[in-house]
Amino acid sequence: MAGAGTSKTGAGRFFEDYRLGEVIEHAVPRTVSGGERALYQALYPARHALYSSDEFARACGLPAAPLDDLIAFHTVFGKTVPDISLNAVANLGYAEGRWLKPVWPGDTLRAVSEVIGLKQNSSGRSGVVWVRSRGLNQRDEVAVEFCRWVMVRKNDAAAKAPEMAVPELAPVVPAERLVIPAGLDFTRYDFARAGERHRLADYAIGERIDHLDGVTLSEAEHMMATRLWQNTAKVHFDARARPDGHRLIYGGHVISMARALSFNGLANAQIMLGLNGGTHANPCFAGDTITAWSEVLDKAQTTAPGVGALRLRTVARKGDSGFDLRGADGKYLPEVLLDLDYWVAMPV
Amino acid sequence: MAGAGTSKTGAGRFFEDYRLGEVIEHAVPRTVSGGERALYQALYPARHALYSSDEFARACGLPAAPLDDLIAFHTVFGKTVPDISLNAVANLGYAEGRWLKPVWPGDTLRAVSEVIGLKQNSSGRSGVVWVRSRGLNQRDEVAVEFCRWVMVRKNDAAAKAPEMAVPELAPVVPAERLVIPAGLDFTRYDFARAGERHRLADYAIGERIDHLDGVTLSEAEHMMATRLWQNTAKVHFDARARPDGHRLIYGGHVISMARALSFNGLANAQIMLGLNGGTHANPCFAGDTITAWSEVLDKAQTTAPGVGALRLRTVARKGDSGFDLRGADGKYLPEVLLDLDYWVAMPV
Amino acid sequence: MAGAGTSKTGAGRFFEDYRLGEVIEHAVPRTVSGGERALYQALYPARHALYSSDEFARACGLPAAPLDDLIAFHTVFGKTVPDISLNAVANLGYAEGRWLKPVWPGDTLRAVSEVIGLKQNSSGRSGVVWVRSRGLNQRDEVAVEFCRWVMVRKNDAAAKAPEMAVPELAPVVPAERLVIPAGLDFTRYDFARAGERHRLADYAIGERIDHLDGVTLSEAEHMMATRLWQNTAKVHFDARARPDGHRLIYGGHVISMARALSFNGLANAQIMLGLNGGTHANPCFAGDTITAWSEVLDKAQTTAPGVGALRLRTVARKGDSGFDLRGADGKYLPEVLLDLDYWVAMPV
Repeated sequence: MAGAGTSKTGAGRFFEDYRLGEVIEHAVPRTVSGGERALYQALYPARHALYSSDEFARACGLPAAPLDDLIAFHTVFGKTVPDISLNAVANLGYAEGRWLKPVWPGDTLRAVSEVIGLKQNSSGRSGVVWVRSRGLNQRDEVAVEFCRWVMVRKNDAAAKAPEMAVPELAPVVPAERLVIPAGLDFTRYDFARAGERHRLADYAIGERIDHLDGVTLSEAEHMMATRLWQNTAKVHFDARARPDGHRLIYGGHVISMARALSFNGLANAQIMLGLNGGTHANPCFAGDTITAWSEVLDKAQTTAPGVGALRLRTVARKGDSGFDLRGADGKYLPEVLLDLDYWVAMPV
Repeated sequence: MAGAGTSKTGAGRFFEDYRLGEVIEHAVPRTVSGGERALYQALYPARHALYSSDEFARACGLPAAPLDDLIAFHTVFGKTVPDISLNAVANLGYAEGRWLKPVWPGDTLRAVSEVIGLKQNSSGRSGVVWVRSRGLNQRDEVAVEFCRWVMVRKNDAAAKAPEMAVPELAPVVPAERLVIPAGLDFTRYDFARAGERHRLADYAIGERIDHLDGVTLSEAEHMMATRLWQNTAKVHFDARARPDGHRLIYGGHVISMARALSFNGLANAQIMLGLNGGTHANPCFAGDTITAWSEVLDKAQTTAPGVGALRLRTVARKGDSGFDLRGADGKYLPEVLLDLDYWVAMPV
Repeated sequence: MAGAGTSKTGAGRFFEDYRLGEVIEHAVPRTVSGGERALYQALYPARHALYSSDEFARACGLPAAPLDDLIAFHTVFGKTVPDISLNAVANLGYAEGRWLKPVWPGDTLRAVSEVIGLKQNSSGRSGVVWVRSRGLNQRDEVAVEFCRWVMVRKNDAAAKAPEMAVPELAPVVPAERLVIPAGLDFTRYDFARAGERHRLADYAIGERIDHLDGVTLSEAEHMMATRLWQNTAKVHFDARARPDGHRLIYGGHVISMARALSFNGLANAQIMLGLNGGTHANPCFAGDTITAWSEVLDKAQTTAPGVGALRLRTVARKGDSGFDLRGADGKYLPEVLLDLDYWVAMPV
């Protein structure tokens, strides 16, 4: 159609459209409810008790069960897509992510991103854009924040490259910067109702946990999940977007699936506190069967009563291929889908 | 089974069962909640801010975000199916549709239809039934009303035809008959949060907008959507209902998909006010990829502060075939799925 | 992986792990909302008015529409899976089921089971476990209870068999033990809004009803439904779990589909009161088209105004093969999926 009828429509930003320090207010704020929670539980085998039961959450000092931390993450991520990653070639990484306020049914989230880094590729046809994105609730409190960087195409290869600036991002969120939800108290934590008896003290750094369960993915489910976060990237929905006719599954779908599968062995890893990093190592498609394993990377104390922090790597993979991550060439093995590094809250 | 065990079950009405002026109270009132909203957003790429965010709606003078206008439409339509279109051969058209009261979580909708026209076909084996259907809330206020006409089979070709009466239906709902939700005020409308900067003044009559995005449909999603409106027409759910083994997708699924896709270019077309007409030009099946374009047909003022009305044609089609609607023979092209004519509210 | 990384993960219980009289508190309490109701209506053609409309429920003496009785059943059943049926070879039967308190949006359900019977099979490699499971709300009231028995593998064939005890279970819940929701009054029941005119007096013992409609099942829908009840049995989600690559559909999905299909002919069978028995006669897979028929087994009075009890057999089958249940050999025909025996409340 060669551009006919496109004067009103958004084609997304290209690499040359970003400016360092620019603040982008993303569109379409979103009010969430028990409907999002029910759908989340229908789409993922999510069973962490603090998010499943108002009674369990109250016994832990919260007013009610919050919505899953990844609902907050995906909702904010989805809002950034039209401005950040509609023309992205690749989602390269995450850093410095923190959950700062729980999200409750009735809350309204909006998203704001700041451009914190820009670097044109040597080809001159694309560049890397670093942004720090924040999700704010209706009281303008930051509920979740994270940095991500994406490779974005240039619209005009001849366009002048923006000034180069590569941000220094912390390889790990320091434990003392993690924020525990106000009131949280695990001193009378009910391990039987949570589903497992293991507390922070039972996990050893370097320990690996095979989460055993597997889920075979379907087109309808990943599209519903991705739409639920108002993420509109064409490649997830339009079978014509890739030459092979496959719809690429949103990386966040794999994150949520891995986190939910990790219940088996990490049932008490109740709250996601920090996102240190993450790599979508290989594309994922309907028909793939996802399994997951985790490795304990670190442990830390917090100031909240009975609450410790555990740093985990959770890996999602196709099929069931052991704990191998990389081949002899140092690259991720083809069956590895996700390598996620994050902090959780757990009873000590 | 030749009728065994069917003395209690409803086979639906046939053409000879309708009487002019008859009022049919449809069964199964329905209370809606945030669950319907979340599912709507999971099933369609719906992003109009007024329906997504309580905060945005409050800034526009409403008490909270209403449920999508098409949730009200489909809920009422679904209730009419067992009495109107269970034995329909074709859904022929819509006219004189208006949304009169927003629907909020907690509201209960019921549906009533009046038979306003009847015309037996020359074959004597079927006839056209015109009805005016109304959806009423728990305060007996009409939330949505529309006329539609369907071709219905006769059970007994020898049955006497009912008296013929063809209603005169307005080709367009006059702008002065559109009803703006009480309190709506677009004078402080936030274009950044809504997602686009275009206001009523920026749209020209005759202008065409290509909405760019495409969605490939799946069986699970259209069945969940159709069931959500308690629409039970067999052909949408039972693969045995058609000789080709395809499940016919409910036309309303295509309407919602087209309306949601129209966000890209019509993000400020916040509220559906009137339904002037609509044709389901060709059947739609799982695997089809839907795209949409719109044409500005008219513009009008309203008495609400800052609120204008825009008359649109939105066309849903399979694949991406330009703006062509009809072939040399005057018939809809085979890739055209929907031709919808409606009024929306937009900031002036 | 030969057990590496599995010291923290639950492999489920084996036959030799159960003790007679043992009480198992199942993990992960669950708060339900309007989200579960909307999803239930999207997944099943559920239309019983008492569960669809707050207004209808109020006119029948209840404070609002409860959640579908099968939402309560599946939620409790799902909680028992990790402790009872993760290593089950077969789900053998149900008995003595009763719904004792309606479940409302906002309620939190937890589940407790008592081991009431144990019998090792002659092979010595498995045994039958009988449990009585109860779902309790946040006020520790029993909302639903039922017995079920499953065949469970032994982990170690040489392990000593537990003491044998086969419980005596009532073949039918006596009508006088059925519990009608407090306040229920059908004396001003609105048959038009409920969808059918048939009352208890119109049903004859021995009468059979063909529910006519059919639904073709999809992978995405049965997985979403099963996950919604936090039922994690691998065989429903992991295409690698069976040699044929099919995902086995949760038997409860068939129960809900059959109950919803039974609306056509049993629209006034509003409430499930008792579960006398049930057999999942054959496995069910995506692509199967489910139809259902019912037989009236008994009728009874209750002490609630205008409320009678009807005992039904509802049979779900693949395709449409008449009312035959068993072949000449006395075994269920291969197309029979479910044979359910239950009590419902209906206006007299």
